[in-house]
Amino acid sequence: MTTPRRHEADVIVVGAGISGLIAARTLLGAGLTPLILEADERVGGRILTEEVMPGLPVELGAQWIGDTHHRMFALAAELGVQTYPQYDEGESSYDLVGSGVMRGNAFQAKFESELGELERVFRLLDELASEVSPEAPWLAPRAAEWDAITAGAWYDAQGLSPVARTLLEICTVGILAVPTVEASFLHLLFTIQTCGVTAELFAESEGGAQTTRFVGGTGEIPKRLAALVSDHIVLNTPVQLIEHTADSVTVHCRGGLIASARRVIVAISPTLAGRIMYDPPLPGVRDQLTQRVPNASAMKAFFIYDEPFWRADGLNGQLISDVGPARMSNDTCLPGDDHGVILLFLEGEQARTYGRMPQEDRRAAMTAELVRHFGDRAARPEFYVDGEWSDRQWTRGCYNANMGPLVWTAYGHALSTPIGAIHWASTDTATFWSAYMEGAVEAGERAAHAVIDELAK
Amino acid sequence: MTTPRRHEADVIVVGAGISGLIAARTLLGAGLTPLILEADERVGGRILTEEVMPGLPVELGAQWIGDTHHRMFALAAELGVQTYPQYDEGESSYDLVGSGVMRGNAFQAKFESELGELERVFRLLDELASEVSPEAPWLAPRAAEWDAITAGAWYDAQGLSPVARTLLEICTVGILAVPTVEASFLHLLFTIQTCGVTAELFAESEGGAQTTRFVGGTGEIPKRLAALVSDHIVLNTPVQLIEHTADSVTVHCRGGLIASARRVIVAISPTLAGRIMYDPPLPGVRDQLTQRVPNASAMKAFFIYDEPFWRADGLNGQLISDVGPARMSNDTCLPGDDHGVILLFLEGEQARTYGRMPQEDRRAAMTAELVRHFGDRAARPEFYVDGEWSDRQWTRGCYNANMGPLVWTAYGHALSTPIGAIHWASTDTATFWSAYMEGAVEAGERAAHAVIDELAK
Repeated sequence: MTTPRRHEADVIVVGAGISGLIAARTLLGAGLTPLILEADERVGGRILTEEVMPGLPVELGAQWIGDTHHRMFALAAELGVQTYPQYDEGESSYDLVGSGVMRGNAFQAKFESELGELERVFRLLDELASEVSPEAPWLAPRAAEWDAITAGAWYDAQGLSPVARTLLEICTVGILAVPTVEASFLHLLFTIQTCGVTAELFAESEGGAQTTRFVGGTGEIPKRLAALVSDHIVLNTPVQLIEHTADSVTVHCRGGLIASARRVIVAISPTLAGRIMYDPPLPGVRDQLTQRVPNASAMKAFFIYDEPFWRADGLNGQLISDVGPARMSNDTCLPGDDHGVILLFLEGEQARTYGRMPQEDRRAAMTAELVRHFGDRAARPEFYVDGEWSDRQWTRGCYNANMGPLVWTAYGHALSTPIGAIHWASTDTATFWSAYMEGAVEAGERAAHAVIDELAK
Repeated sequence: MTTPRRHEADVIVVGAGISGLIAARTLLGAGLTPLILEADERVGGRILTEEVMPGLPVELGAQWIGDTHHRMFALAAELGVQTYPQYDEGESSYDLVGSGVMRGNAFQAKFESELGELERVFRLLDELASEVSPEAPWLAPRAAEWDAITAGAWYDAQGLSPVARTLLEICTVGILAVPTVEASFLHLLFTIQTCGVTAELFAESEGGAQTTRFVGGTGEIPKRLAALVSDHIVLNTPVQLIEHTADSVTVHCRGGLIASARRVIVAISPTLAGRIMYDPPLPGVRDQLTQRVPNASAMKAFFIYDEPFWRADGLNGQLISDVGPARMSNDTCLPGDDHGVILLFLEGEQARTYGRMPQEDRRAAMTAELVRHFGDRAARPEFYVDGEWSDRQWTRGCYNANMGPLVWTAYGHALSTPIGAIHWASTDTATFWSAYMEGAVEAGERAAHAVIDELAK
């Protein structure tokens, strides 16, 4: 990894997240020379594995893959990264709408009818989502109607009990990382459809998005991918300006590096792509799109104990609650390690509220919540770490781009359509498991193949 | 206006719109040396007067001031720019909810009850808006509730007749330039409150926001302001990077100019301010704010005729319609000039749909609409011109920043709060007539005085 002042390549890739790395590797495989320009001092983008104790990596960013993430399974196998299943034994712990803390079995018995409501909503969502093409959600027959209401307003109109409505909010915020009133209902349906069905999106169990983890940490994926293209990556090099013609680009970076190529693939989230200066300037529709796709607000916090003491109580480490700082948690222990690890998710309003507190204050609030659900031992972790993404200059929010009302229908077609020599990647532009690592691979491959086809002409 | 490579000043101002020009003039008046860095080749920002025929300036950008725009009246007087009243005689022409084209008096007689509904909504809006402080809308007692619904959803819930609901949409989109489902209801109340009452915001007649125009064109204001600070403006100089400490800034521009100062006032719309790179990076809350304040979508189109032929028919040149490309128009003739000038407003969805068409197609669609309302002579203009703002690289949308659900409550406090040596201006940060020229003056003065106070310590 060198930093010459002038660089030439066939294709410049902006961003060394999964999408950019995959694009570069695909280009290299086709005999083209890529150059990845990464603003940060590291590769991986929204993947960030930190080894907080020897042999104990925690995932401050992307963590899981699910059973239908075929590209990611294949990639892991190719890179020699082993996988293991997410722990999922025992009861969850609930506290919803004033129920007080209740164990899962009791909760399910007491709220059987409310859970039935939820199932009916999921079936209806699946039915409606099946009318939405992930390639072009704005073409759905009822796109105009669905894009003109928020997901939250649609939920509110379903006549649900407080418990069902609250659970629905928690499930959905767990995916979108914004309150449902910030998302267009069409965007929710798009999200469901890119993932298959609600059962896959919302479940952690079989068929869900979060069934499987990587030995050594998710960071092994970008690390090993980067090793395959290591001669073609420059770190610490934020792109400031892309000059472009129909068949060439010149990319100017902070620090003085100037790189020329025949194409550029911008493999960063759309909101960040909108901060680059383009010359000639991009069309208004593309520019107004990137003003309207804010990254969501998510934060993860890890409590590491001497052992997973909750398991002995028949608990699975998952809390689901509408009080306190975290709406959900789970057991994130590592195979072959004795520590007990609880991960708390702060998403949407919780990420915003608690993410702006001093760390010790939010830690104290989360500790109190863990003690309520898992007992006094929860107050004595060996280690604590959390990670907020909106403060990170080269990410600025997780998990992905949110679409408010009328964004998909008025601007969606500009999301991944190339403009001259400029192509767009990042998981936010994917059509299968958009927002997930799986989508990042798809988007990187799609952009690279489009460029390969163009340059072969 | 020179372009040295290195520049020093007391205070750098980013952007030569009204807000930046006023800030620079205020600083100069206090004995400080400002340096305005303007990306564009001209001053004025969202003001753009084009002399399409000798003595016939048309306003592609900001055009009017209203009776309570005291700062702007004072500024015009100081700069020697004369004002004149907006023409407002005769009937409007309506076509709403399938009514067909109807003259104003007939429309008002037929839909008296519907117009009464509208009045009741305005009174309710005034009442609710009075609980919202324009300095801190997130502190309103019901802020959480009002920010969690869209203005459109609130309107939908008022049980209005189709005619009343449609008129309400047209009025509101005429202000916000986005469909009401894109705006938070709290944002609507904020907008009303910064302007006084709905009557002032929505009316063109006495007390409204659009009563008065400038002789020679609105462009005279920034032009004459710029003349007062002309030794301190550098054009064609987009800011790319602001390095900052608690007491100093170094600003790096495309083209190589580097400027140092003790403070910087960023006087551009928040979405554009978010594209500048800051070192050290800004806090996450500020960054996520600027991801969530997209500029709205507005466009103006002018048909210039040999005379204002509609006046002889007792019409005032205003159409109000829910069919065709423009929801509203008005008579924009100039005193002392014989031409008849009709201005059509394309706002929100209309700006997006028609703004992306070839000009001849949207002109044809507007011509057909004008003929329906004003007769065959409307098909024969001497001249046509239109201006879309999202294509303009250094503006990227008008009239101003829109706040969707939960933006004000989660991020509003970061809108104008200085960060170390960095201060924020632009009309979007104003508390009185935010989004108008009046607000731009207020914001520029506020930021300049804050800097003057700091530097006097």
